[in-house]
Amino acid sequence: MQHPKKVVLAYSGGLDTSIILKWLQTEYGCEVVTFTADLGQGEELEPAREKAILLGIKPENIHILDLREEFVRDFVFPMFRANALYEGQYLLGTSIARPLIAKYLAEIAVESGADAVAHGATGKGNDQVRFELGVAGLEPNLRVIAPWREWDLSSRTKLLEFAEQNQIPVAKNKRGEAPFSVDANLLHTSSEGTVLEDPAQEAPDYVAQRIVAVEDAPNTPEFIEVTFEKGDPIAINGEALSPAAILTKLNELGGKHGIGLLDFVENRFVGMKSRGVYETPGGTILLEAHRGIEQITLDSGAGHLKDSIMPRYAELIYNGFWFSPEREALQALIDKTQEHVSGTVKLKLYKGVARTVARWSEHTLYSEKHVTFEDDAGAYDQKDAAGFIRLNALRLRLISARNARVAKK
Amino acid sequence: MQHPKKVVLAYSGGLDTSIILKWLQTEYGCEVVTFTADLGQGEELEPAREKAILLGIKPENIHILDLREEFVRDFVFPMFRANALYEGQYLLGTSIARPLIAKYLAEIAVESGADAVAHGATGKGNDQVRFELGVAGLEPNLRVIAPWREWDLSSRTKLLEFAEQNQIPVAKNKRGEAPFSVDANLLHTSSEGTVLEDPAQEAPDYVAQRIVAVEDAPNTPEFIEVTFEKGDPIAINGEALSPAAILTKLNELGGKHGIGLLDFVENRFVGMKSRGVYETPGGTILLEAHRGIEQITLDSGAGHLKDSIMPRYAELIYNGFWFSPEREALQALIDKTQEHVSGTVKLKLYKGVARTVARWSEHTLYSEKHVTFEDDAGAYDQKDAAGFIRLNALRLRLISARNARVAKK
Amino acid sequence: MQHPKKVVLAYSGGLDTSIILKWLQTEYGCEVVTFTADLGQGEELEPAREKAILLGIKPENIHILDLREEFVRDFVFPMFRANALYEGQYLLGTSIARPLIAKYLAEIAVESGADAVAHGATGKGNDQVRFELGVAGLEPNLRVIAPWREWDLSSRTKLLEFAEQNQIPVAKNKRGEAPFSVDANLLHTSSEGTVLEDPAQEAPDYVAQRIVAVEDAPNTPEFIEVTFEKGDPIAINGEALSPAAILTKLNELGGKHGIGLLDFVENRFVGMKSRGVYETPGGTILLEAHRGIEQITLDSGAGHLKDSIMPRYAELIYNGFWFSPEREALQALIDKTQEHVSGTVKLKLYKGVARTVARWSEHTLYSEKHVTFEDDAGAYDQKDAAGFIRLNALRLRLISARNARVAKK
Amino acid sequence: MQHPKKVVLAYSGGLDTSIILKWLQTEYGCEVVTFTADLGQGEELEPAREKAILLGIKPENIHILDLREEFVRDFVFPMFRANALYEGQYLLGTSIARPLIAKYLAEIAVESGADAVAHGATGKGNDQVRFELGVAGLEPNLRVIAPWREWDLSSRTKLLEFAEQNQIPVAKNKRGEAPFSVDANLLHTSSEGTVLEDPAQEAPDYVAQRIVAVEDAPNTPEFIEVTFEKGDPIAINGEALSPAAILTKLNELGGKHGIGLLDFVENRFVGMKSRGVYETPGGTILLEAHRGIEQITLDSGAGHLKDSIMPRYAELIYNGFWFSPEREALQALIDKTQEHVSGTVKLKLYKGVARTVARWSEHTLYSEKHVTFEDDAGAYDQKDAAGFIRLNALRLRLISARNARVAKK
Repeated sequence: MQHPKKVVLAYSGGLDTSIILKWLQTEYGCEVVTFTADLGQGEELEPAREKAILLGIKPENIHILDLREEFVRDFVFPMFRANALYEGQYLLGTSIARPLIAKYLAEIAVESGADAVAHGATGKGNDQVRFELGVAGLEPNLRVIAPWREWDLSSRTKLLEFAEQNQIPVAKNKRGEAPFSVDANLLHTSSEGTVLEDPAQEAPDYVAQRIVAVEDAPNTPEFIEVTFEKGDPIAINGEALSPAAILTKLNELGGKHGIGLLDFVENRFVGMKSRGVYETPGGTILLEAHRGIEQITLDSGAGHLKDSIMPRYAELIYNGFWFSPEREALQALIDKTQEHVSGTVKLKLYKGVARTVARWSEHTLYSEKHVTFEDDAGAYDQKDAAGFIRLNALRLRLISARNARVAKK
Repeated sequence: MQHPKKVVLAYSGGLDTSIILKWLQTEYGCEVVTFTADLGQGEELEPAREKAILLGIKPENIHILDLREEFVRDFVFPMFRANALYEGQYLLGTSIARPLIAKYLAEIAVESGADAVAHGATGKGNDQVRFELGVAGLEPNLRVIAPWREWDLSSRTKLLEFAEQNQIPVAKNKRGEAPFSVDANLLHTSSEGTVLEDPAQEAPDYVAQRIVAVEDAPNTPEFIEVTFEKGDPIAINGEALSPAAILTKLNELGGKHGIGLLDFVENRFVGMKSRGVYETPGGTILLEAHRGIEQITLDSGAGHLKDSIMPRYAELIYNGFWFSPEREALQALIDKTQEHVSGTVKLKLYKGVARTVARWSEHTLYSEKHVTFEDDAGAYDQKDAAGFIRLNALRLRLISARNARVAKK
Repeated sequence: MQHPKKVVLAYSGGLDTSIILKWLQTEYGCEVVTFTADLGQGEELEPAREKAILLGIKPENIHILDLREEFVRDFVFPMFRANALYEGQYLLGTSIARPLIAKYLAEIAVESGADAVAHGATGKGNDQVRFELGVAGLEPNLRVIAPWREWDLSSRTKLLEFAEQNQIPVAKNKRGEAPFSVDANLLHTSSEGTVLEDPAQEAPDYVAQRIVAVEDAPNTPEFIEVTFEKGDPIAINGEALSPAAILTKLNELGGKHGIGLLDFVENRFVGMKSRGVYETPGGTILLEAHRGIEQITLDSGAGHLKDSIMPRYAELIYNGFWFSPEREALQALIDKTQEHVSGTVKLKLYKGVARTVARWSEHTLYSEKHVTFEDDAGAYDQKDAAGFIRLNALRLRLISARNARVAKK
Repeated sequence: MQHPKKVVLAYSGGLDTSIILKWLQTEYGCEVVTFTADLGQGEELEPAREKAILLGIKPENIHILDLREEFVRDFVFPMFRANALYEGQYLLGTSIARPLIAKYLAEIAVESGADAVAHGATGKGNDQVRFELGVAGLEPNLRVIAPWREWDLSSRTKLLEFAEQNQIPVAKNKRGEAPFSVDANLLHTSSEGTVLEDPAQEAPDYVAQRIVAVEDAPNTPEFIEVTFEKGDPIAINGEALSPAAILTKLNELGGKHGIGLLDFVENRFVGMKSRGVYETPGGTILLEAHRGIEQITLDSGAGHLKDSIMPRYAELIYNGFWFSPEREALQALIDKTQEHVSGTVKLKLYKGVARTVARWSEHTLYSEKHVTFEDDAGAYDQKDAAGFIRLNALRLRLISARNARVAKK
């Protein structure tokens, strides 16, 4: 295969992607375009620009974008409409950010006439899959380069040697082995590797970076109200906020109250199990709140249907199939169910728990008139239940009669 | 329809079922057989015997049975193998007890030559359905009488009048309206009605009966180890215990640490929404622990399959279809997946949260050798990922090429 | 309950609904509005008008509507986008017509200020459910009257007596028992009852009314081309036709070649099994053709998703839940998948079989370049398959290693 | 990677696997063990032995096994219990044979101390995946060699040169390009490639090898009776037969009547679409018969559950996951539903169609008493339907009332 001429690199400004940048230049002799996104990871991005320039990238080839609103509005919120949980527990904080990065890699490549994109994900993880399926689903002819699968810089020592040889600045604390690997964005922070690799060992306290230790959380509960419109949160305590601002606010609240910590062993798409520690403070509150508002506004038919396809939807996102016909078809189903998911949920936040305590809506399907133990003024005729049950029981009666008949013979 | 001659009544010894007992005697002139079960509801059962005798039931017609072990072993544990949650959150504590009661109603009816059974569930709820479908699935020709759907004792006043006229003792505190209705067994306590009927109003603190207020829970976390064999818990902190003893122990631990409180609006099978407060202290810990052990012992193929059918399984139990071919077929699937779900989970209990912090097993599928960020000695060839991704991407590339081609025209 | 004042009756002009018309007048003293629809059942509708007038209905209260285009466009075609089959075989010809009738019953009731609607379906079948759920999903406060469940005209003799007493004309051949009951519309003709009631007995030849006996079908095959756009057929043999015209044409073709006969035992929603003979000539061709065009234009991800939800979708239609949030959500999913299901299918019609023999489309995803056994000029690198398989196999290897390890102990 | 020492080769005796045999010997210098199975493909196997000896294989290294009974009993019949169809139409005739071959490759490798197995499937198809996943699921440490992905014999010319150089006999008709590729076993014959590669072109008549052209099928229908026990066929026309004998007999019947021809474009697991012509005479009859007996013996709850998981089950088999925990779990579900699927089906075979015309069973759930249009002597109370419908309609009424209420604002 021919060498690429121009490559768009997903560039964080950190040591690893700086080494990749240099390696692309030296290995392929190609022009490198950098793309650095603010997804709410909480790091300054200007140093990435300076470092790119230092490594010889032309200013017009440096793309630094604040994607926080798009990330939350077009990726996080649509996913939360589904109450998506991977393997029952994981809120997909890393998975959901990858297609957005893939989208911009592809777009910048088209705009800048690049013939390839590159990323810094390793060959063992899910992120390589998510980046590459994302690009394939958008630009079929774009080549993807994954240096970690190609080069022979297979140890920390070799990487540092390469950095030194190529005048790549190495922060002091990067010289030793990092105790674990971290990914962060506005939805979550994940940690995995090294000290976390034995799932029989508890994670050290210092792993959690974003959520206060539940023992140190306030001793007084805090009550908040989250308002939804068509399945998406639009206000907190009555104050309308943009998507990113809402998630930022929920993160502050969750982080303060120790909410959203998960120690988890999951099944990677590439076939192995891995253990991670996930911190999703705002997302954990949002899931609970969304369920709370669905409780009164969503019908059981639509709700049970959503529940039944959710695992598949979550699996698709986890595996990197955001830009696939099946994810889009499921999204159409999910969005259709959210037309009346509007209203307000009151939650209690305390010591690691976000719990719905009340909910109300103009779109409510809850009918006190029907459910009351008191006199319901004829809203519901209890005698109807006899017929309802008898017909539901008919096939069961036919079965038990058949089984008895056959058993006798 | 002819009057029944002999009726087996699910009898709690309380006011309502005592009224039903008398009503059956007077309305139908039939012989009544009482069945009272200890499902761990935490009440003495001998008073039920005395009261039945007082109401004219022959001693040989009084059946009082301790079903706690059967309840947990044959109903609760099989259900927890599925990680069953109704509508994402409810642990089905009431639902799972009903088929067991139906089973004994049917068995005692056959043994005693009764031609009908009776229960005290109202015509608005799910329990009538569960009792009656349960009986239909076991004894097709047995008639079920649901006095609440038939009589005209439609107000508290009329009920008390009937009690007085028939010399049924009424406890002092029963003379006023109960503030809410309660059901309890070894798995959970549920409360609903009256003060809970408006889902926009927070539940009063006094509703919770079994779980300490999280503010009053100990300020020090407690760590426990739960050991599983083929999907069922068999020991706590290394001590082997019977099924009922395990659940009892987990209830103590959960209740003490404020774990397992749920304020919930759900969709009843009969078509309306209702609001309940559920306390499931031990069950909440058990679900978390079971997930923890599945994380390392269950393969993703089996796990994702289980996840995808779980909502249907939970719905079947909620709707009363325990004794149905489809629940049994799903159970066969679930049980098949649990053959290697054995090992130990360590959990942290603190202030309303049970959280897995470590897990280990001889049956583990977790392979540190494969997942490590360090040198894996050839266990995994990162280059394989390139082919894996390229073939997964092939159809996405064909789609995006097609879409681009068609868009041009 | 009070008597209704004005009732809209689904009126066929036949004996049964004429009796119902009279019964409503005499039993309730109410005004009756008739609604008669042309759904392609192949009967003249003007006699229904005359008969209604004869029975005292005011001309302005008689509604006769040709709904064939709406039926096919808004009900039949959306359903065929899903390849819907109930219990693997039944094309839902009766089920899909009922919600349309319910819709007009409700609309005419609102327009004419009626407080109830009535239908002629019995209490044993599915149609009562479909009519009544349809109405409930559109007009919550409209009452539905089902005379067959209410009156005491429980035998043929009593019905005829009632007709005679009320001067309702009875066609000669209706005086004896019909050998079976028939329902027809543009999609199908169904027969059930009497001579068909024993599923161990073959259906007599005279049951089939619309499809020629396969032995009598032409001895020469006929080839046709059906063109689709976004999942719906729009032309036959290159000739653009309206929805109803397309289905009419396919019915002619299918009927002539003996295509679309089904002898079937199905599970009714009300809990019993029933046996019917269904003739769906055009629909059977349409299903085959739609599958043929999906073969080349629909991606496997979307296709397998559609397949997996199809049984539930078909069940919803069968059970009468067309106007439900869950059917609408599933429809959104299905329609989303059909955006590129455009192109042409060539079929061979012969002796009861419609078989796809070729298909082509500008939207095709079929890539001869990739699939060829010949030199593919690098379109596909066979070495990729090694990595693809090795990662798919990884979890299976971990499982078999685990199982061997555990078995040894 | 080191060269293998001893390789078990899936050997047909044909040209391609003979070349592979030689290539393994020359490329790796390894000992080759051949395994040739009779799966009912209709070819003599002794020539394979002679040819293997000719190519230098030691007699004790030649394994020729008649696996027809095992194939049908343990693979085909379990699959047919599920009514499995891939993408709605394909009976999985090739897919289901592969895991059996994989099983024997693995077993013979263990017995003979081989360190690798080899197969002759190409890198573009599904069969490589099925062989290799099968082996991985049984023997985790066994290496699999797929010469088509490794060697440079990339054209017909190069293959024939290699054959000539290595004294491999080449049948005359193999010197030119085969017009298409064929796979056969007791369940089906598949054809694909070359003349079939353009799905817009009709398949030539000569492609079909096993089924008579429908125009040439007998002009007189034939009626047969198939008897089932627990979901498997055990007799034809009252004559008890072994599994392989039953399928053989059904193949004769189907082939004679032109039944079971499918021209199909499918989605391969490796990401591309391909077109094949499948002949499954006996299997097509068996599917129809199995559905016929399920119609009266299988409850709707279990039946609809089976239908809903069938697409996933079929996909697993198609993709090669027979030996996986999820296929086994689904099989447990399916088998559980078949306990009462016993009885007899009468079918009409004529001109390409196998159609159920009658069915009877001691295990029937069909109740003429309930379904009859005649007087049912109280078996079913039509008034029950009113309550049944009203409660099913309740949520729909609440929704339509809510929607109207919200729309007004």
